[in-house]
Amino acid sequence: MVLHGYWRSSAAYRVRLALNLKRLSYQQVSHHLREGEQRKPEFLARNPQGLVPVLELSDGTLLTQSLAIIEYLEETHPAAPLLPTEAAARARVRSIALAIVCDLHPLNNLRVLNFLGTRYRQDDEGKTAWYQHWVNCELGALEDRLSRDPATGKFCHGDAVSLADVCLIPQLYNARRWNCDVSAYQTLLRIEASCLSLEAFSKAVPERQPDSE
Amino acid sequence: MVLHGYWRSSAAYRVRLALNLKRLSYQQVSHHLREGEQRKPEFLARNPQGLVPVLELSDGTLLTQSLAIIEYLEETHPAAPLLPTEAAARARVRSIALAIVCDLHPLNNLRVLNFLGTRYRQDDEGKTAWYQHWVNCELGALEDRLSRDPATGKFCHGDAVSLADVCLIPQLYNARRWNCDVSAYQTLLRIEASCLSLEAFSKAVPERQPDSE
Repeated sequence: MVLHGYWRSSAAYRVRLALNLKRLSYQQVSHHLREGEQRKPEFLARNPQGLVPVLELSDGTLLTQSLAIIEYLEETHPAAPLLPTEAAARARVRSIALAIVCDLHPLNNLRVLNFLGTRYRQDDEGKTAWYQHWVNCELGALEDRLSRDPATGKFCHGDAVSLADVCLIPQLYNARRWNCDVSAYQTLLRIEASCLSLEAFSKAVPERQPDSE
Repeated sequence: MVLHGYWRSSAAYRVRLALNLKRLSYQQVSHHLREGEQRKPEFLARNPQGLVPVLELSDGTLLTQSLAIIEYLEETHPAAPLLPTEAAARARVRSIALAIVCDLHPLNNLRVLNFLGTRYRQDDEGKTAWYQHWVNCELGALEDRLSRDPATGKFCHGDAVSLADVCLIPQLYNARRWNCDVSAYQTLLRIEASCLSLEAFSKAVPERQPDSE
């Protein structure tokens, strides 16, 4: 399998985590997002959205959208499951994942920050205020939820790594890059420490990728 | 089951569609989003994110995030499946759904438009430009993708309704509300016509909900 991504893309980071947790081998092909390589015709032929990641299977099939890719990996390689077995528990894990993947990450994506600059004339201060607002809003709500819910354990869901952790860790990484104060999120930080003690997570951090600068 | 929603919430609209397609009965409880009812303590106790929909099961379990709710319904009520059986096909359907649910809808959500107004002093023109930009970007990419892909049929995936259609139809409804020109999206409009000929879809349109104004 070939993972088309970029070292700092948090969506690609999620897929690296899932691949590592399932002990699947993959090659990485980097597309430099800040230089706009994802807008070039050869990339758009792979994904008309112009977004990474794209997972290219050995038969040439192209999968897009990080959660669709991870659900595919879960269905085809069930070992080291990323979802629990019971339906309501699966819904809880997916709900945590989607709160991050839908309601936080897309708002703070590079293309959104660029559009705030070009169309709305926002400088770095305006962009940072935007970024931090949505992080505070969503990581705050998630901290509130996980700290009160007895289903939270060593990880987001009990004591086993799940899709929820795979989505949370890259977002905490991003939040720090944008100087967000994450110190109030004690539950999230505790879960992060549990995750980062695992090799599948430590191997996936952006600075350890071949295209990191 | 009780669906906590709002007639114009496109995320609640998705869940109505899934419930209707699976012929499941449900009550609706409305929370007036423009009046901020989703920020009140009694609602936040149900969902700290302060977002609809929430699906309340008969045992009191609260499910949040529309796609997590729909995957739960798919797992517990497989009849009238919303996902195909083969893994790569399931990934295709989920990828179309997520392109809408992650990369379009959250950018144009009410809270984002409100924040553009309060923090960035944008008037209706500035908000509309924002809304239309992301619709053009994402529905344009989706039209490009679906029109070129032989897996597209009468519906987004072949000739059976799927999760992808359940996500597309509410977004087209929203786009028109914001005066977006959708006439170029011939494939999407053809799929929409196929969907709206089904009772499960026509029953779910916002104007036919008890709390519509």
